[in-house]
Amino acid sequence: MNVVALAGGVGGAKLADGLSRLNPSPTLTVIVNTGDDFNLFGLHISPDLDTVCYNLAGMEQPDTGWGRADERWDAYKEIQKLGGPDWFRLGDRDLATHLERTRRLGSGEPLSKITADFCRVWGIDPAVLPMSDDPVPTMVLTDQGELAFQDYFVKLGCEPAVTGFRFQGVEKSRPAPGILQAIEGADLIVICPSNPWVSVDPILAVPGIRSALEEKLVLAISPIIAGKAVKGPAAKMYQEMGISPSASAVAKHYSNLLDGIMIDKQDEKLVKGIKDRETHPLKVICTDTWMKTREDRVRLAGEVLDFGQQIIEEV
Amino acid sequence: MNVVALAGGVGGAKLADGLSRLNPSPTLTVIVNTGDDFNLFGLHISPDLDTVCYNLAGMEQPDTGWGRADERWDAYKEIQKLGGPDWFRLGDRDLATHLERTRRLGSGEPLSKITADFCRVWGIDPAVLPMSDDPVPTMVLTDQGELAFQDYFVKLGCEPAVTGFRFQGVEKSRPAPGILQAIEGADLIVICPSNPWVSVDPILAVPGIRSALEEKLVLAISPIIAGKAVKGPAAKMYQEMGISPSASAVAKHYSNLLDGIMIDKQDEKLVKGIKDRETHPLKVICTDTWMKTREDRVRLAGEVLDFGQQIIEEV
Repeated sequence: MNVVALAGGVGGAKLADGLSRLNPSPTLTVIVNTGDDFNLFGLHISPDLDTVCYNLAGMEQPDTGWGRADERWDAYKEIQKLGGPDWFRLGDRDLATHLERTRRLGSGEPLSKITADFCRVWGIDPAVLPMSDDPVPTMVLTDQGELAFQDYFVKLGCEPAVTGFRFQGVEKSRPAPGILQAIEGADLIVICPSNPWVSVDPILAVPGIRSALEEKLVLAISPIIAGKAVKGPAAKMYQEMGISPSASAVAKHYSNLLDGIMIDKQDEKLVKGIKDRETHPLKVICTDTWMKTREDRVRLAGEVLDFGQQIIEEV
Repeated sequence: MNVVALAGGVGGAKLADGLSRLNPSPTLTVIVNTGDDFNLFGLHISPDLDTVCYNLAGMEQPDTGWGRADERWDAYKEIQKLGGPDWFRLGDRDLATHLERTRRLGSGEPLSKITADFCRVWGIDPAVLPMSDDPVPTMVLTDQGELAFQDYFVKLGCEPAVTGFRFQGVEKSRPAPGILQAIEGADLIVICPSNPWVSVDPILAVPGIRSALEEKLVLAISPIIAGKAVKGPAAKMYQEMGISPSASAVAKHYSNLLDGIMIDKQDEKLVKGIKDRETHPLKVICTDTWMKTREDRVRLAGEVLDFGQQIIEEV
């Protein structure tokens, strides 16, 4: 089975990791949000891309989901002593990723090629593709003005109230090489339980990606469980955008792109409402979607593929 | 006593450190070569400046003289795994210096200001001034073509035969703020036992510095002992430039700038020749100039000041 997963940070990375550990595993391509990429100390940092890769390589920090396991903070502590910016924690090993990526980008190589090479070194089987080799920084429109994503997300701890989003330069961006081919060859598209506003929407906004997905069988897994986000500001964003946060809101968010949505069993009462509202046939399945352990990831991934298989057979 | 020291890397850093640890200590300004500054991974690295600062702060790696003590190499090892350039070793703590310096340079601050702030954090008393806030990269002309200094020095291990040197952009460079004032107010100028070609000459080439020094009492300590450099390619460079490497060659190198030179006691036989050759009065003193321990640094520094005092009293 050829599967393409759309992923942002920790939630997406976990499900992508689960999909890659299935036995037999599907032929997996992970398209990763790079709208949260930013520059610090002159380094090009791609937090979502790194989180996905570190998880797929099994070398993520288990407590946080981001960063590397067994990480030390010698550089970070010295930066603090020098009075440098310490709002974004950079581990010593993690720094190597940013340093070498920055060097290669500076010599003109595209992010997708660099990522592929890093994945080979890290023993990652799935193809990991940044959504674009072009920079498309996500700007968060807030009551404190327009903010670069990491300023909003990490520096200000998602404190400002959101009024909208802007994916800067997206209209001129192109999908990274291999993305449209992977989508075309896919039996199933999985929208991981990532933040719809700032993890998945940036990917969908790259010209050509959404229209390619519309031809395909697309499943989403709701990142909202019982009105709350497992992690991050997704629920808060829905609220501030005037939408009650729920799995139902997530279904509506992706709307006619979806053939099916997997929601948490705590939200079983929402199933009928979701189905009734949509004008096109939408399958809804309830299961335990909260991935706490690595086993949870693999189990959920298996259920996602079964769900996809079931829809394929019905069609 | 107001002392200005001209320093390059390890040898200069050691003597500057000795001068700063004298009791009573002179009011010390250290002017440091930045011709070896270079860019790696997008980081602005100033090896000589860091070596001087780490030594003055007592936090240098004692085995090498450069880099920081108790350093770990997590980032460096990961860079190696990723196939990145590993010819220049970057320790985890040392990385913080380059990261924060790069960030502040990028935001428009001058190197001298950044260095002063770092020195304050590191508890360094002497004023440490980069020779210029303008980039003046040293290019080494060799039988393999023109090479950036660190490519020659570290990457190629000083292997190529040298035919000359070029201090790129030096004619338009200005001494860093405070340099000319420090020289004007100095009772004694000390040219540390650094490489005359690539550590001291770049400093002397910055417009205004050499002419300011000509008005002053200047002592040099020969980095060549018994025809060999304590460290680095100074002797090899003399040879390749067609000059027999010796303390005598060092005296000739600085020529009419010098009022006195301190050479190693192993080179006592050179004293008469040095004195006879110079057309202006030149004092020569022999002592043990090889600084192996921190005590050696302080002892030698004391002898340097005594030598200076002696000349001052004679004048």
